Amino acid sequence: MRIAIDAMGGDHAPEATVEGAIAAAKEWPDTEIILVGDQARIEALAGSLPSNVRIHHASEVIGAEDEPVKAVRRKKDSSMVVAGKLVREGEAQAMISAGNSGALLATGLLVVGRIPGIDRPALAPMIPTMDGRGVLALDLGANMDASPEHLVQYAIMGSIYRNKVHGIAKPKIGLLNVGTEAAKGNELTKHAYPLLEEAPVHFLGNVESRDILQTECDVIVCDGFAGNILLKTLEGAAGTIMGILKKQFKRSFMTKMAALIMKPGLAEFKKFDYKEHGAAPLLGTNGLVLKSHGSSDAKAIKNGVRQARIALQNNLIESISKEFNRGSDNK
Amino acid sequence: MRIAIDAMGGDHAPEATVEGAIAAAKEWPDTEIILVGDQARIEALAGSLPSNVRIHHASEVIGAEDEPVKAVRRKKDSSMVVAGKLVREGEAQAMISAGNSGALLATGLLVVGRIPGIDRPALAPMIPTMDGRGVLALDLGANMDASPEHLVQYAIMGSIYRNKVHGIAKPKIGLLNVGTEAAKGNELTKHAYPLLEEAPVHFLGNVESRDILQTECDVIVCDGFAGNILLKTLEGAAGTIMGILKKQFKRSFMTKMAALIMKPGLAEFKKFDYKEHGAAPLLGTNGLVLKSHGSSDAKAIKNGVRQARIALQNNLIESISKEFNRGSDNK
Repeated sequence: MRIAIDAMGGDHAPEATVEGAIAAAKEWPDTEIILVGDQARIEALAGSLPSNVRIHHASEVIGAEDEPVKAVRRKKDSSMVVAGKLVREGEAQAMISAGNSGALLATGLLVVGRIPGIDRPALAPMIPTMDGRGVLALDLGANMDASPEHLVQYAIMGSIYRNKVHGIAKPKIGLLNVGTEAAKGNELTKHAYPLLEEAPVHFLGNVESRDILQTECDVIVCDGFAGNILLKTLEGAAGTIMGILKKQFKRSFMTKMAALIMKPGLAEFKKFDYKEHGAAPLLGTNGLVLKSHGSSDAKAIKNGVRQARIALQNNLIESISKEFNRGSDNK
Repeated sequence: MRIAIDAMGGDHAPEATVEGAIAAAKEWPDTEIILVGDQARIEALAGSLPSNVRIHHASEVIGAEDEPVKAVRRKKDSSMVVAGKLVREGEAQAMISAGNSGALLATGLLVVGRIPGIDRPALAPMIPTMDGRGVLALDLGANMDASPEHLVQYAIMGSIYRNKVHGIAKPKIGLLNVGTEAAKGNELTKHAYPLLEEAPVHFLGNVESRDILQTECDVIVCDGFAGNILLKTLEGAAGTIMGILKKQFKRSFMTKMAALIMKPGLAEFKKFDYKEHGAAPLLGTNGLVLKSHGSSDAKAIKNGVRQARIALQNNLIESISKEFNRGSDNK
């Protein structure tokens, strides 16, 4: 299998992407890695490459400040867009990027393209949970507004992803909402609820945002706006509380002693570290697109390759495509 | 001035409501308190009442499990509905209830009634912030869906409330959104942004949910669904993190010592306690309606009276009404 890596995307690119790609290539000799980006810079960093890594030159870079859709349309020789083209043309089965999120969503939609039958690809990161398992949440920002039918598509794609990539036999699906009763919610969730009951997924019902860290669900669906509010509020609250804690632990000699005593116990908070939960798939694109965190280090890039391998080995894209094209198969 | 208290509403009613009402009556002899509820029970609890407290009998109670709108329509002699009627009829200028939130919203809308010109009353609690000032957020659940025009009405009402009740000369208004740029957001926020720029408020722009605890804004506007996701995620995240901390501080003798050392520093978290931030006004009703937290104790009820007094003394309702009926005044 062949995996394209956007060598120029992310805060630590191309150093981290090149190092991660080489580590992955060494660990999985059956996998061919295509490093897409500035050939001279990559060669200078990498020295001699393993035989299963090759460089595909791209002369441009989409930066963090670039306006996403415009950048994808104009920078046709950027590492991200070229990686997307390799997937579209079947040169690679997957692409991984730690670059501009909005541009990657646009690359997925405009360059890689949608699976027939899917209206909108959705970004699906894992939200860490108390039990350490995490919950796949979609859509987390690819589409701000959604229809009830879109939420059903998200549920089906999320269910297949959890099954194929994480081996969960019958993923439990929840609808992000303001109460647990079926009749609760806004127009979107009230209309989505009965559709989800009829959908080919194991729908458990509504999940309140207050319970998200304790949820038993494997997948949560929501529109991109609500999903963004959820995720960013979690990040903000955790960051603020941990900031206060750190400050208080540093106040005096005695509190520093207290910090030492508490250190092993506070390691429990590590399970809330997004880095432990891998890259976020963009589900619904006709070829695997993985979004790695902007601050990804080499280890995160290597883990992205691991994740892509599992998805490809288990025919993720084919499974989603089949589910959404049952009608046409039967014609 | 006269303030009606729903004596039967809340987890600790009628004990906490009666005790709080009496304490308030003693502190503010110029204020008449009307305790609405089961006369016999209130009398048994209260003994002899101060001269500025009287009981208004109501034979029914709306419970936490009652379906809000149905309960308000059917239980016409419930303490909550009767308190609402007292406000509507001018017998009282304000009502305070710690009872069923949904039913109180319905009481505000159906019994007390709207200020002419306002489409939908909005629930406006304070969200605690890092600097201890807090931010008034509306709508937090009265109306799940909202139009851009509704968000503008929320902004105006929130601005007047912060001015009249908290003495802020020029309250800063923010729009809850997924990014800081004007063009960000869903259909609702993208359309609300230019309207807020034109509105008679001091609009600062978008506020991301990740920054809510650090915001410099005095008021944040959002639809009820997004607001609920925001508030409940904050509560859930804080609860989960504090739960882990407590567990880790209790693990051993040494960690218990660490907890003792840290106790003064961790008091900083108290500013995130909703109880310190008072009752939430339902803004847009033609008469003051205050929602006290369900778990309110006597002190919280007394603080509710303090809050109502300030709002009434500063002509909150008249100010909102005037702002929304400028056109008709000029006719």
